[in-house]
Amino acid sequence: MFLNELWAEQEEFIGKEITVHGWIRNHRPQKEFGFIDFSDGTAFKHLQIVYDAKNPNFLEIQALHNGAAILVSGVLQKSEGKNQDVELKAKTVQLLGDCPLDYPLQPKKHSREFLREIAYLRPRTNLFQAVFRIRSIAAMAIHEYFQQNGFVYFHAPILTASDCEGAGEMFQVTTLPLDKLKGEVDYKKDFFGKPTSLTVSGQLQAETFATAFAKTYTFGPTFRAENSNTKTHASEFWMIEPEMAFVDLNGNMDVMESLLKYVVKSCLEKAADEYTFLDQFVEKGLKEKLEKLLNSSFTRITHEEAITLLKKADVKWEFEPQYGEDIAKEHEKYLTEYFDGPVFITDWPKDIKAFYMKQNEDGKTVAAVDLEVPGAGELMGGSQREESYEKLLKRMKELEMNIDELDWYLNLRKYGTCVHSGFGLGFERLLIYLTGVENIRDVIPYPRTPGSCEY
Amino acid sequence: MFLNELWAEQEEFIGKEITVHGWIRNHRPQKEFGFIDFSDGTAFKHLQIVYDAKNPNFLEIQALHNGAAILVSGVLQKSEGKNQDVELKAKTVQLLGDCPLDYPLQPKKHSREFLREIAYLRPRTNLFQAVFRIRSIAAMAIHEYFQQNGFVYFHAPILTASDCEGAGEMFQVTTLPLDKLKGEVDYKKDFFGKPTSLTVSGQLQAETFATAFAKTYTFGPTFRAENSNTKTHASEFWMIEPEMAFVDLNGNMDVMESLLKYVVKSCLEKAADEYTFLDQFVEKGLKEKLEKLLNSSFTRITHEEAITLLKKADVKWEFEPQYGEDIAKEHEKYLTEYFDGPVFITDWPKDIKAFYMKQNEDGKTVAAVDLEVPGAGELMGGSQREESYEKLLKRMKELEMNIDELDWYLNLRKYGTCVHSGFGLGFERLLIYLTGVENIRDVIPYPRTPGSCEY
Repeated sequence: MFLNELWAEQEEFIGKEITVHGWIRNHRPQKEFGFIDFSDGTAFKHLQIVYDAKNPNFLEIQALHNGAAILVSGVLQKSEGKNQDVELKAKTVQLLGDCPLDYPLQPKKHSREFLREIAYLRPRTNLFQAVFRIRSIAAMAIHEYFQQNGFVYFHAPILTASDCEGAGEMFQVTTLPLDKLKGEVDYKKDFFGKPTSLTVSGQLQAETFATAFAKTYTFGPTFRAENSNTKTHASEFWMIEPEMAFVDLNGNMDVMESLLKYVVKSCLEKAADEYTFLDQFVEKGLKEKLEKLLNSSFTRITHEEAITLLKKADVKWEFEPQYGEDIAKEHEKYLTEYFDGPVFITDWPKDIKAFYMKQNEDGKTVAAVDLEVPGAGELMGGSQREESYEKLLKRMKELEMNIDELDWYLNLRKYGTCVHSGFGLGFERLLIYLTGVENIRDVIPYPRTPGSCEY
Repeated sequence: MFLNELWAEQEEFIGKEITVHGWIRNHRPQKEFGFIDFSDGTAFKHLQIVYDAKNPNFLEIQALHNGAAILVSGVLQKSEGKNQDVELKAKTVQLLGDCPLDYPLQPKKHSREFLREIAYLRPRTNLFQAVFRIRSIAAMAIHEYFQQNGFVYFHAPILTASDCEGAGEMFQVTTLPLDKLKGEVDYKKDFFGKPTSLTVSGQLQAETFATAFAKTYTFGPTFRAENSNTKTHASEFWMIEPEMAFVDLNGNMDVMESLLKYVVKSCLEKAADEYTFLDQFVEKGLKEKLEKLLNSSFTRITHEEAITLLKKADVKWEFEPQYGEDIAKEHEKYLTEYFDGPVFITDWPKDIKAFYMKQNEDGKTVAAVDLEVPGAGELMGGSQREESYEKLLKRMKELEMNIDELDWYLNLRKYGTCVHSGFGLGFERLLIYLTGVENIRDVIPYPRTPGSCEY
């Protein structure tokens, strides 16, 4: 049986014979008996296996290595030890797959840098058992939230011939033989007959689903060929992008808030053991931070109000807050501390925001929103989308965009246009917040960053 | 309110005033009254709106176009019509976004080829409302099945520097300026410092998670740069790839069978209206086909047994069945008809299967399995994986594979190796089966095929 099945009905199995298969995480043989810290990876909680000299193959068991795969039968019994409630008294222990003594994952503390180098083994450690299980639970919670609320899951295309959000930072995709190119490129001979890239966002296509199903969301990989080597940038990451017809900026914020709370609640409930570990060894106060979020009411202020507040603050800023300009990390931090909780900042200067955002009547701002969360900074960003064909066209012309290429996007404003809104949530940024792990390389199984594409 | 909320508690709202926003799917104005076939896309079932000459802006309402977005308030009442149980007696009808008379989606039958050309509008039609909602429901069912059974969701990397499954059919990814290449390529200057492609499968990486979490699954996009213009090939498609430690070929088949049944059951339950439509207009007998599957026991035979059976059959084959060789579509069809249900074919000739499959003792076959389903052909394929380091290494050398590049994969057989198995399910092939739509281009929102990368 698997450990997740055992732990789900632990009391039922006490006094009964069970058989488990899994790996030796740590083996402590003594003279007359021994302990095996055992896990099959289906639950964070390990099982302690005890054996003694009465066992016919005692010497063989004593010789088992850390990392080996074993099959164990025995009786589950209440433990006398302090930290385990039950243990498995082994009758037979059978070696399935040995593990050499130079196994890189010995039961001691390894640095995260070292573990990144053996990324294919690190999911076997406590830290990454916790992180990647929470990744899985959080992904499921996101699907649950949207499906329970009537959203249709939309698989946005990954390959795209459109470059509306900044061609410079996109990866090119081709089947042309690079070593035979001679200064000129005939894209008619390429696989799709034109230049093609990896998507940076599925939002524009998601809007076509929002104007058909009213409520839709993407959850898929996106790519950025940005040469940033920071703790929060990866070249390949997963994004969640909901789009909703007949929902304005306020409704958008309602969904952002309830989604975040749903995911946090789900993780705390389903990964209790993982959180006990992370709270103790990774981020002290992690659980309290997340529980506090669940009970927070999220503040809503405009960008202008935020700047006024920052200017009034008795703080010596590195970057002076300015009306009409972006805000810095130090400002985000001040605001979430000032309001002691998450803050929605709305109605941003239009020149620092994207072309598709709804233009406010003041002619200066757009109906954009960023969600700032204590300890995470900007976690989500979204806007009401411009629903006027004329205003959107004018803005695209001002920005010298390729109108022909996006005629279908403009047409959504011609064929039964409506108020609609959406936002984006970077899944890995959320995971950094949810797990307390600081580096994006440690929340992605096989991270891709400039110069690094291993496994 | 949204229609999915209305239909969920329809009886509660009869006699009450409600407000809805959505689109006119079909408008039939009469002299003294009119009917609007209305939908907001959150449910397959439309709402009929009735209005009459007593309405103060009767003339304005009469002039509303198909495709326009409207806001309607009125009282929900039992309908006298034949096909609707309730209708909305409009008090006010407000135009939100008009739609011109040349709107491509008029309420008449359009060919699927025409609808592919306006792929951004086709989700508004009944057919694609059904298909893409079932796509969403099926995706959710897959996640539910695995999460309920203790599998960890694994995001396999999309960008990969490994080419173990056939470099010729992979898309290259680069940030090198193609128009400046001069016959030589210095990959050190490329984004990742080496040649990089789009993944064709996440299986090998998923095995690293299986040997850490025991049970894992991928669900993500994969790519094939194959120049196939068929009804069942796309260049970008989504795959589900579970991997399970301590599970052999039989256990693998158990999961394949119960997963498929879970997904079918979930779709039939959650998309009842959609299935009534598809059964009537797309594939006669679709519901019966799916219900029959739920009650089928899946046959298990070996490849050798299958060939013997085919050779004995009184059929004139286009391709003569041969021991040691692959089987053709006509053979698959015969076998599923012979057994009147799904058939697992196991233990395939090793030379036509992948390097990582477990070598059987006969030296000729591997512990592979294909699932053949009536009306769908091969729907899933999998195997027990070779767990012996020596055997796997020998096979890779025979096939002249790059051993160094896959040392991490080989090492899984060194560090606590165990019996493990997995399979792959092409999501779009499943959807073709689930919806009765024959062309893969019609089950993907924005399909990518050779020469075609639109939107």
